[in-house]
Amino acid sequence: MTGPVSPLALPLPEMPAITGAECASTAAGIRYKTREDMTVFRFAPGTTVAGVFTMNKCPGAPVDWCRAALKGGKARALVVNAGNSNVFTGRAGRETCERTAAETAALIGCKPREVFIASTGVIGERLPTDVLLAALPGAVAKLQADSWQSAARAIMTTDTFPKGATRTARIGDATVTICGIAKGSGMIAPDMATMLSFIATDAKIPAVALQKLLSKGNAKSFNCVTVDSDTSTSDTVLLFATGQAKHPRIPAEGGAILKDFARALDEVLHDLALMVARDGEGAQKLITIDVTGAVSAKSAHRVAMAIANSPLVKTAVAGEDANWGRIVMAVGKAGEPADRDKLSVAVGGVWMAREGGVIPDYDEAPVVAHMKGREVQITVDLGLGRGKARVWTCDLTHGYIDINGSYRS
Amino acid sequence: MTGPVSPLALPLPEMPAITGAECASTAAGIRYKTREDMTVFRFAPGTTVAGVFTMNKCPGAPVDWCRAALKGGKARALVVNAGNSNVFTGRAGRETCERTAAETAALIGCKPREVFIASTGVIGERLPTDVLLAALPGAVAKLQADSWQSAARAIMTTDTFPKGATRTARIGDATVTICGIAKGSGMIAPDMATMLSFIATDAKIPAVALQKLLSKGNAKSFNCVTVDSDTSTSDTVLLFATGQAKHPRIPAEGGAILKDFARALDEVLHDLALMVARDGEGAQKLITIDVTGAVSAKSAHRVAMAIANSPLVKTAVAGEDANWGRIVMAVGKAGEPADRDKLSVAVGGVWMAREGGVIPDYDEAPVVAHMKGREVQITVDLGLGRGKARVWTCDLTHGYIDINGSYRS
Repeated sequence: MTGPVSPLALPLPEMPAITGAECASTAAGIRYKTREDMTVFRFAPGTTVAGVFTMNKCPGAPVDWCRAALKGGKARALVVNAGNSNVFTGRAGRETCERTAAETAALIGCKPREVFIASTGVIGERLPTDVLLAALPGAVAKLQADSWQSAARAIMTTDTFPKGATRTARIGDATVTICGIAKGSGMIAPDMATMLSFIATDAKIPAVALQKLLSKGNAKSFNCVTVDSDTSTSDTVLLFATGQAKHPRIPAEGGAILKDFARALDEVLHDLALMVARDGEGAQKLITIDVTGAVSAKSAHRVAMAIANSPLVKTAVAGEDANWGRIVMAVGKAGEPADRDKLSVAVGGVWMAREGGVIPDYDEAPVVAHMKGREVQITVDLGLGRGKARVWTCDLTHGYIDINGSYRS
Repeated sequence: MTGPVSPLALPLPEMPAITGAECASTAAGIRYKTREDMTVFRFAPGTTVAGVFTMNKCPGAPVDWCRAALKGGKARALVVNAGNSNVFTGRAGRETCERTAAETAALIGCKPREVFIASTGVIGERLPTDVLLAALPGAVAKLQADSWQSAARAIMTTDTFPKGATRTARIGDATVTICGIAKGSGMIAPDMATMLSFIATDAKIPAVALQKLLSKGNAKSFNCVTVDSDTSTSDTVLLFATGQAKHPRIPAEGGAILKDFARALDEVLHDLALMVARDGEGAQKLITIDVTGAVSAKSAHRVAMAIANSPLVKTAVAGEDANWGRIVMAVGKAGEPADRDKLSVAVGGVWMAREGGVIPDYDEAPVVAHMKGREVQITVDLGLGRGKARVWTCDLTHGYIDINGSYRS
């Protein structure tokens, strides 16, 4: 929080109010003592909800809670705290979620199962439930519709800049709005971080259709970002649709009427996911990796992630070295179909290696210049099929070691 | 080569001659200009051979060559060079192997397919074949039986210390000897490194039995070591049995008569593998990870490797922080069966977390002291079954970034 801001940071955009979604942030003092660390959202009756969560087999208590609550498809509130992730806290952790939901439900006037919960921060320490609950009434009392900016800040942990995105979309003749915020310095970051994102829209979309849109958009955005290959125990993306906009009725399964909404949602997810990569711990460069010519899209994604997670590729980028040999190595270690002699590698759009060897007379000057920039493009064509994928990551620098090698204190 | 020696280095042991195995190292000048960079082994007629190689899908030309040559089960020579890995070099790379084998076969008096080849160093640059071939006759002229020590040095790249191990074993009433050398600063290291190991014995063991022993021993040693999760395109382990010792005849399939030999071979492989971890780039601490209570040995191995490859676990160890929350995270991301509420975690033999939560009154003092040492022990019990595994790695430090983030030059 007190270190330098990422050189890849983007400004927080203006975010309009979403009718039917109010929020407020407050300094509960759970861990941080000098900043807002808790955010409460209240949603209008009838709000539908969709969610995607970490694949980690040891998820935190809030993830368990949200997975169960999601079955109802309805949401009236969201409570988020930063500083303690309530992970690996046993029975105490489950009780924290139950009490938080019950207390919030009483204040808002809803069922506990309509309250969603997310926590981020240190693993394995009991979350001081009484401290959190004591701050709830004050937060609820100051709920208002245009508090996205302070919420984007209150959910931060090791983040160096707040992350938000907004779009409008057409549903029939009506215009609806989508706002989202995210936090994260990696798929996971140190014991003080994780990846969370909360998005709201005033559109009225049935829960089944909403989940379909979110799952599809998430696969192209947050699931295509990696900082260090470590998967948080708390990763959570929640999408709320307050239903306050007036537009034609959406069928339960969604369909063509949601085409423009899907486009706008994908853009919001994409923006937020890239901001997470831009805030990767110690990041000095944003790396975009395109893989084409794979036997399938899934195979392309796995190859791209193997490149994105390779410490040797990431340190080479940090050193501004277009070391395509390490890229070939990472392709080969992915375990996916690959033929060394059909492989091509480009950096900054310049093909450097093709058909099992270096291109002897490739122009090195533009590659060297490209590597010195803030954004690095790696392209690999496997020459086998039509599968393709794009993922994003950041370089691996001394900053990562500094942030993660220090004592907890 | 010129940086500081790893604080985890071990001294190179005395290594006795293996009857039927001679070697010589020479300064061929392939890349390094001021040191020996090429080693030739000559083996007695009748020598059998076994090998294991990288699983990388983009292997170097020498790996392709050895895989094909291994089908014959016989070896008369081995040529190793450091400084250029002959990887991703297309047709030129294949020709280098063919010419090296033909030239060596002519000098030694054997078939080209009885010549084994290994190269380590930069990827994607043509190996100057003429330079290598020009140095061959001089090396062959000075072959002698007790040159293991200089060979251990000549195969190094980013290694900070030479690696060797030796044992004797009983076969029937006879004593046989095993000597081995290895190089590597990681499963792979930067563009100047890889993992190679060459082992010879005077025992007379049929190729099929030899391969069985090597594959089994390798699974417990080199395949249990990781530095950075990156898999070299050149990893090669070759085991030669010259058959010069007098002992009872070994059946083709091996069997109980090889029990003590297997024990000794496993110890040599284990010693060499640990030396690779001890020389991991930037390593300040050797980490041993034991996983018990998994549903199978394979599952235990995967969980242990997920912990060993986690940048967040490795940076925590570098920071001398017994951050068991990150260990829980790494268990969960492995994708193997795991139940958060049955999991236990110990560091330095002190159980810190059990049954889904921290042990409130565990004694922190011995854990803090343990983390300050050179060797760190992490133990995870999954509480599900009887599968267990042990792997080794090193911490992730600024040294790794320094070594791998610099320009190639």
